[in-house]
Order: sequence, then C-alpha cells, then structure tokens
Amino acid sequence: MSNVPRAPDADHPPAQASWSRAGNGEGDTTLEENWLFRLRRERFRSRLSGREHDFYVMHLADAVHAIALTPDDQVLLVRQFRAASAHDSLEPPGGLLEPGEDPREAGARELLEETGYAGDPAVFLSTLWSNPSIVTSRTTTIVIRNVHRVAEPKLDHNEEVTVELVAAHDIPRLIQEGRINHALCVAGLLWWLQARPDGTLA
Amino acid sequence: MSNVPRAPDADHPPAQASWSRAGNGEGDTTLEENWLFRLRRERFRSRLSGREHDFYVMHLADAVHAIALTPDDQVLLVRQFRAASAHDSLEPPGGLLEPGEDPREAGARELLEETGYAGDPAVFLSTLWSNPSIVTSRTTTIVIRNVHRVAEPKLDHNEEVTVELVAAHDIPRLIQEGRINHALCVAGLLWWLQARPDGTLA
Repeated sequence: MSNVPRAPDADHPPAQASWSRAGNGEGDTTLEENWLFRLRRERFRSRLSGREHDFYVMHLADAVHAIALTPDDQVLLVRQFRAASAHDSLEPPGGLLEPGEDPREAGARELLEETGYAGDPAVFLSTLWSNPSIVTSRTTTIVIRNVHRVAEPKLDHNEEVTVELVAAHDIPRLIQEGRINHALCVAGLLWWLQARPDGTLA
Repeated sequence: MSNVPRAPDADHPPAQASWSRAGNGEGDTTLEENWLFRLRRERFRSRLSGREHDFYVMHLADAVHAIALTPDDQVLLVRQFRAASAHDSLEPPGGLLEPGEDPREAGARELLEETGYAGDPAVFLSTLWSNPSIVTSRTTTIVIRNVHRVAEPKLDHNEEVTVELVAAHDIPRLIQEGRINHALCVAGLLWWLQARPDGTLA
C-alpha cells in the first residue's frame, strides 16, 4: 500500500495536542482573504497552563511536487520566478491541490500543464507539513516514471516556465551547490534519493 | 570553509531573475504588519513579456534549526505545539534569527534557551529558501556536537517545550513513519543523514 497517499502521522496518530482552540472562535480575526489564502489570528488555550495565546495561521491549499523521470533516468525540472526570493527557482513541476483532490492526480496534471510530459501512474512518496508554525499547507511528493513529451505545455497567462532535463545522478550535486534550493522540493528530492542505491550526497 | 554560512546559490549566483519589481513600488500594498511578519502584495514585471503581475509576499525573518548530538550519538529534539497543523511537532531546536545574526550563534542560543543544552561550536550544514513562492525566510541547519545539559531551559511565557533524546540511527525511521513531519526540519535532517555513512532511509 506504499502508493496510497498518507497524511502525516497517519500510522501513528499523535497524542492529543497540548493546545486546543479557545472558546468558539470569538477571539479569532481574519486579517486578509484572497484567491490564494486566508490569513487569520486564532486563539488557542494551553491544556497544561490554561493560558490563551493568539497564533497567526495562513490557510493555504496543500501542494504537490512531481519527480518525473525519463526512461534514460533524467529528471524533469522547471525553472520559474519566485517572488519571495526574487529569483528564478529550479524545482520539480508542481502546484496546489484542488479541495479533495488526490495529490497523484494533481501532480500528473501539473506535470502535463507545465511541461507537456506524461508517464506511468504516479506513485506516492511522502507528505510533510510545509511549515506547521504558520501555514496549514502540506506538501506531497510523488514519482512519475517513463515520462515522454505528449503535448504542448498549457501555462496560465502569468506563468513563464522553462523545462530542464537533468541526469538523476546530478541531483545531489545541484542541491549541494545551492542550484536547487527550495526547501520543500529539497525535502522531497532527498527523501527520494535516500531510497536509491546511489543516492549519497557528497 | 565548509563551516561558513552560505546563502543559497552563493557559489553560483543565479542569472538575472526573469521578473523584476515594477516601477518604484507604487503598485505595492502592505496588507498586514505585526511583530512576526509583514504581508505585502507586490507588483513585478516580466522581462520577457513586459506583463505586470501582483504576488503575495510574506516578509518573515530567517530561521535556524540545530541538530544537537550528545557524545553517545543521540539527537536532541523538542516537541511543541504548532498552530497551523494544530498538532505537537517533533523537531530539532530552533527559532528565528535577529537581523544580521549569524545562524550558528542563533542556533546555539535557541538550543540553550529551549533545552538548557550546549556543546561544541556550531558547524554550518545548509541554507534553503523556506518557501520562495510566498515567504522571504530562509532556513539554515547547523550541527552542534558533544552537547550536555548545562542550565535550565529559559522559555518565553507562551512556549511549552518537551525535550526528547532519540538515537541518531532512529531518525530515518521517525521521518519515514511521519513522526518527524515538519518539511523544513526534514530537509535539514535528510541533508545531514546523507553525509553519514549509515544514513539510508529504508
């Protein structure tokens, strides 16, 4: 069942959280709401001390990254502008999930839209909290083998994406040198590399 | 020079970004500003198409996580509530940097404050963009060896932290099982494991 998406800690449900929502939400405030996220200040109460504290929480959709492999063991990456770093970033193709969407379907869809490539059915690799201090989003990484170019990319009108093929054995060096430096992508790629016999990072 | 902090891509500066700030910022808006972050909508212009687009950018301080090792190869972890996941999260000790602060100093400080442990001078491991789509923060991971308990923890009044010691060889299993599931911590831990001879993730 290793290809069935799994929520973080699904096999080992955590003990009851040490803080719970305070009251019925009357202490909460929505600070900003737009097409991408809802930013809120939410009040929690410590089960230990009874103390209440307001936390900032950005409600943002879950994301997926697709590690797409060609038959000759090249990895398909995309380079695109990222506003918060003000740099172009080299990453596995990916994007946000629609509500309730299976990350394997979403990842295959994003791969096709951004690169025009498609391949074998997607295999689930990992799901992690993107930054559980402040963002509700989880990031899933999937693997799609035997990808081929089957169509033209279909980009949103503000997306400008360059496709790059990189030998799989070069991925550790690209991470080490800082050429792949998006933490959520690096977490998925390192997880994937660990499962490969030659996956050592120098 | 491997222990000198390095910005992402410092050795290989990226080519000019494909988008640049539009105008003098007159299209930008600050949506929320508080002690933790400044959320803005910022206008950029594509160098390729000339098209302008507004991106949401959360200006948040850089962070550090400290992989702290005891002389008998145990890793010091902390368990604490994370509001956006509404779960308690198992992580290396860490926190936010003061402006201009060296992440090695900040990591040693956070280790001492959260756990009461201190050890050898911190060694730099990696710096990654936490989520360059939307957050300006970078996350650095450092390693501190030979840690011993030297003091009582000094927690902020809303911090409730439990210290846990875990054998280093159990870290891959804890990640695999989803017990350590904060992506920014997992990226640092997997990077560190890759450099260890026994660092394979089953």
